[in-house]
Amino acid sequence: MAPGRFIVFEGGEGTGKSTQVGRLADTLSKAGIATLTTREPGGTPFAETIRAKLLAGDHAASGPDAEAILISAGRIDHLDAVIRPALTKGTWVLCDRFTDSTLVYQGRVSGGDRAFLSALNARVVGEAPPDLTIVIDLPAKEAIARLAARPGADGGRWDESSEAGHAAIREAFLDLAKADPARHVIVDGAGDIDAVADRVWSAVQVHFLAELA
Amino acid sequence: MAPGRFIVFEGGEGTGKSTQVGRLADTLSKAGIATLTTREPGGTPFAETIRAKLLAGDHAASGPDAEAILISAGRIDHLDAVIRPALTKGTWVLCDRFTDSTLVYQGRVSGGDRAFLSALNARVVGEAPPDLTIVIDLPAKEAIARLAARPGADGGRWDESSEAGHAAIREAFLDLAKADPARHVIVDGAGDIDAVADRVWSAVQVHFLAELA
Repeated sequence: MAPGRFIVFEGGEGTGKSTQVGRLADTLSKAGIATLTTREPGGTPFAETIRAKLLAGDHAASGPDAEAILISAGRIDHLDAVIRPALTKGTWVLCDRFTDSTLVYQGRVSGGDRAFLSALNARVVGEAPPDLTIVIDLPAKEAIARLAARPGADGGRWDESSEAGHAAIREAFLDLAKADPARHVIVDGAGDIDAVADRVWSAVQVHFLAELA
Repeated sequence: MAPGRFIVFEGGEGTGKSTQVGRLADTLSKAGIATLTTREPGGTPFAETIRAKLLAGDHAASGPDAEAILISAGRIDHLDAVIRPALTKGTWVLCDRFTDSTLVYQGRVSGGDRAFLSALNARVVGEAPPDLTIVIDLPAKEAIARLAARPGADGGRWDESSEAGHAAIREAFLDLAKADPARHVIVDGAGDIDAVADRVWSAVQVHFLAELA
């Protein structure tokens, strides 16, 4: 049994990541590939506890590096309890956000120590980083319009409802993708869901040519 | 209100740390100082969950650096929810094990990356490391004899029931103390409990001369 592949979706709020995770899972399933979808922060009961603590601001006073350590603890649990066992069984894992989000939100946005955060990410993933990270890219104006259309939308903790805030986050994700092109692909998130899903599927087929042939 | 002081007890298993934490708390209370005793890994419900996961070996496959990240997440919770609020109120906090144990057990004993573990510890404690770490020092033979006398003793996960194992751990704690003498004191753990408690109290009085005058 060949091990499954680990695909991460990244990007700012409102870019359509979560929708595209679901669409790619459908497409892979139709291609006969067992697929698991999950998300971060979270993905296990322990990690969801951490997510709730962070959203409640329990550790905001300890700063972004401390928050990243908490997120990383949840990520280790997620890897050990969910992601790695699935991959071992040959299941492909699609995850909504992962280590790049830590570099962007705790690093670029909140001013955490990027060298430390990179070391932390490296220790968390060990020798098995995601096989592919798909950055769904969308201009700030369009992402904000989508966010505003969501019920209960409040812009979130990272001020992604401001154009400057969203633009900085977009830039940060693009920089990470460009710095590690072998494991990243940038997909244009503009247009309707089907069009984006087609682009994602093309990118996945190109990246995993051997497995999907 | 002057902030409380943060005192950590470190040393191998069987050295009498936990007993001495209790004895110093009694002595400080009699001196009119509000005192809180706690322990690591643990000290909050969240951190005790992590302790249980580690003791169950849930993350052993992820290696010592990952274990240290999990321990650190619990430590941040312990600091934010228990230790710092107590110190702010003027309460002195006595903690059984803290960051040095991470350097010793996940670092020296288990082969974790010491530079990474030091960086991790530094991010966890931020600008408020323990005011004093008391290393209770005992020759391996004596510690092992004490451990063997404990009901249900099995030598523990770190093989501290072997003389070589205990000796290596002792050496590691002494090295850390010697590398940071301004914040460490080594107390001879030999002899009866009262004698050791007297030595601990003398060391504390010397270190906190101004507060305890």
